[in-house]
Amino acid sequence: MAKTKVAILGFGTVGGGVADVLAARRFADIEVTHVYNRDYTRKLSRPQAKKLPRTVIWTDDINVILKSDVDVVVELIGGLEPIEGWLKKAIAAGKSVVTANKQLIAYRGAGLEKLAAKKGVSLLYGAAVAGGVPVIPGALQGIGGDEIVRISGIVNGTCNFILSHMEQGAEYAEVLAQAQKLGYAEANPSADVDGYDARAKLCILSRVAMHAELNPDEVPTQSISKVSAVDFHYAKELGCTIRQVSRAQVQDGVVHARVGPMVVPTESPIAWSHGTQNMVVTSGRFGGDVVFSGHGAGAHPTAVAVVSDLLAVAQQCGVVHQPVRKRAVVGEFLAPHYLRFVVSDKPGIVSAIAGALAKVGANIDSILQRPGYPKDRLPFVVTTEPCLTSVVERAVRSIAKMDCMLEKPLCLQMLRIEDKAED
Amino acid sequence: MAKTKVAILGFGTVGGGVADVLAARRFADIEVTHVYNRDYTRKLSRPQAKKLPRTVIWTDDINVILKSDVDVVVELIGGLEPIEGWLKKAIAAGKSVVTANKQLIAYRGAGLEKLAAKKGVSLLYGAAVAGGVPVIPGALQGIGGDEIVRISGIVNGTCNFILSHMEQGAEYAEVLAQAQKLGYAEANPSADVDGYDARAKLCILSRVAMHAELNPDEVPTQSISKVSAVDFHYAKELGCTIRQVSRAQVQDGVVHARVGPMVVPTESPIAWSHGTQNMVVTSGRFGGDVVFSGHGAGAHPTAVAVVSDLLAVAQQCGVVHQPVRKRAVVGEFLAPHYLRFVVSDKPGIVSAIAGALAKVGANIDSILQRPGYPKDRLPFVVTTEPCLTSVVERAVRSIAKMDCMLEKPLCLQMLRIEDKAED
Ligand SMILES: NC(=O)c1ccc[n+]([C@@H]2O[C@H](COP(=O)([O-])OP(=O)(O)OC[C@H]3O[C@@H](n4cnc5c(N)ncnc54)[C@H](OP(=O)(O)O)[C@@H]3O)[C@@H](O)[C@H]2O)c1
Ligand SMILES: NC(=O)c1ccc[n+]([C@@H]2O[C@H](COP(=O)([O-])OP(=O)(O)OC[C@H]3O[C@@H](n4cnc5c(N)ncnc54)[C@H](OP(=O)(O)O)[C@@H]3O)[C@@H](O)[C@H]2O)c1
Repeated sequence: MAKTKVAILGFGTVGGGVADVLAARRFADIEVTHVYNRDYTRKLSRPQAKKLPRTVIWTDDINVILKSDVDVVVELIGGLEPIEGWLKKAIAAGKSVVTANKQLIAYRGAGLEKLAAKKGVSLLYGAAVAGGVPVIPGALQGIGGDEIVRISGIVNGTCNFILSHMEQGAEYAEVLAQAQKLGYAEANPSADVDGYDARAKLCILSRVAMHAELNPDEVPTQSISKVSAVDFHYAKELGCTIRQVSRAQVQDGVVHARVGPMVVPTESPIAWSHGTQNMVVTSGRFGGDVVFSGHGAGAHPTAVAVVSDLLAVAQQCGVVHQPVRKRAVVGEFLAPHYLRFVVSDKPGIVSAIAGALAKVGANIDSILQRPGYPKDRLPFVVTTEPCLTSVVERAVRSIAKMDCMLEKPLCLQMLRIEDKAED
Repeated sequence: MAKTKVAILGFGTVGGGVADVLAARRFADIEVTHVYNRDYTRKLSRPQAKKLPRTVIWTDDINVILKSDVDVVVELIGGLEPIEGWLKKAIAAGKSVVTANKQLIAYRGAGLEKLAAKKGVSLLYGAAVAGGVPVIPGALQGIGGDEIVRISGIVNGTCNFILSHMEQGAEYAEVLAQAQKLGYAEANPSADVDGYDARAKLCILSRVAMHAELNPDEVPTQSISKVSAVDFHYAKELGCTIRQVSRAQVQDGVVHARVGPMVVPTESPIAWSHGTQNMVVTSGRFGGDVVFSGHGAGAHPTAVAVVSDLLAVAQQCGVVHQPVRKRAVVGEFLAPHYLRFVVSDKPGIVSAIAGALAKVGANIDSILQRPGYPKDRLPFVVTTEPCLTSVVERAVRSIAKMDCMLEKPLCLQMLRIEDKAED
């Protein structure tokens, strides 16, 4: 049997992990022949580099790879440029591609897939969402027969680390600092905490599971940085906790999608994941809810997804394709909402808030005020009955202007448990 | 594009579900052309029968199928005979096979797979374990790159329904009767409650995830029928609950495997599944724990798995194959154990039990005796430190002979949480 020849582009965290896994598993049909990295001499002393076959050609010239006889290019660099161009050339040269690059697949995946189909090569990206959790192959092959109508996921480990630690009582800034110290958050954490990383993953999931192609820039995101310890206290009183949730739902040909901190019932699978764990729940019309969970990042879990894709390419296993349609995104959801205000207390505040909500037609479901907070800086919470987010936000904008408001009010969607298999 | 022609064998619960799903999804490349069922005229009036194309040929003669030009045979009858012979003939005739038949795949899967490989056709059985939960494709494709060292699963919905309801305080007999009334348990529940159904599924998982071929008859099973309400009270004191767990673990080339009620930490994913939900946790050397959960049975969830396999066959997507090895089964686990005794209380019992355990070298970890039980019929619990099951059972057999023992002692393995991604 001819071995499948593999080039690894990018010998960083995941690239090294792939070398580890391949060295341990010794697949008879896979052989790394090339590694591309800028200024690669720095990499040669890594223990992972020493696990590669001695015959590997190291290069910092991408053309060496593109002109080589490798069968598969494994892209573990990241970013859109210059990667997209390189991979297009690789595909045009008849090479299959395996990548962990979520931004690339979210923004340029459709074009690359078309090209790959035309050239009859594979383009696999199981590592791009939820690392070692096989939600992409699961959605493509495992439940491809179902009609998936909803996806809800925890796909950013950094946010989940921060929020699940805040659940224990700490404040945002302090947990972020801890996450940075542990290497779970970048020095500039914006891509994670503001939801851009999760949004790319949500768009990939939308394509593979719901066959709906979204423009990531159209998906509204909300930062987790405005959530505070007090919100966890109030969420707990509601039988809930708070997680960064990425959700999308098809309804009448439109996709409702959003990424942001949401209030989720502790009973819901979404609340199960702690630390950097990832979790995706797909809801099918026929099969109901399917939960996938595990390690969403890290050198080795991510490498498992990459190597699994590599095996599929080596054994020429195709992937189930279903027709994908471009869909407009609506950020709206009909959902109950959680509103937290911090006020300097005086009579009439609740009635003014109730009035503003009534004016837009939002019904109040509960008002929570825990004892023990200072009256001159009083956090309290109002939850609404199901109502469109834009409508609630309109009321919140007018409430924000009230004199007594000491902070911008926080408005979060609340998730409900609604698993149902059609039967 | 030529359509893939499909024959459905067995138009019962799952067969009808497949008709529903295919009618709703209208895949351009799949066409049901034949349905085989004994005495099929009874089936024609089912609404699902009316969803099939009008041109479908119904037959009660299996040779009509075997001699037809169908590309895929979807077997939804169940059992070993005469099914194995029919499917061998179908494969020999160049037809691919999709089946939901766990007994067949557990006992005869290896032979059928060899035959299918020889003939270059597909044999897929995603529905055979955990119905609509894509653990088989997930394990084969999604985490095929990892080295899976352990599997723990809740793969029998009937047992999970019974035990998760007993958690609320009811006794076994009463919940079993309720499950039978709801159609979740058979009139003769032995295959489910005694663990034979789960054992077949565990062996299939062992093959696809750990590449270890086991003889199902070698896997020890323990019935859930001896678990009583009091065990849930004691489990709760230990921060645990009780579930029918199917587990297998490779260690030094041997597979440790067992099916039975086990004491599981409420913190563990295994404890999350309620009702008829299924849940499988695979533990990989590199990727750590991956959790799959959802609806493990029912017409539509199971049909989703069947139709997903059908799509893969229609699109000629192969499956990743890895070398499989026959492995001897050891029922032993080094685990803490939960021992529940029901005694007519008198001085010296605890010391006699402690003596019997000490004699075999089992250390006691805790002794629990909840107040409020009658002294003449006193249930109490001893837990041991990690110790081989056979060793504990030896002590239990000698303890069982003590005069004061009013019931056969119950001995359950206790699960620990041990998720670890290598990094
Ligand atoms: N880390 C994870 O847990 C994880 C999980 C899922 C997906 N991913 C994705 O996997 C990809 C790689 O992530 P990573 O964590 O392995 O990143 P990383 O550690 O930064 O590795 C990237 C590697 O690519 C090299 N590189 C960067 N730009 C290059 C260029 N223009 N030309 C040549 N070489 C270049 C880097 O070299 P230098 O050393 O010179 O910078 C480095 O060796 C990204 O798409 C990421 O989103 C990562
Ligand atoms: N139900 C589930 O939730 C589920 C989940 C996972 C896997 N499965 C598996 O799926 C398979 C089918 O299960 P099911 O629940 O659909 O069973 P079912 O409702 O009993 O359907 C079986 C069908 O096959 C027919 N049949 C039985 N023996 C036959 C024979 N010798 N010749 C011709 N026709 C025969 C039956 O006809 P009659 O009407 O005459 O009996 C019936 O229509 C089994 O292997 C089962 O283990 C089921």
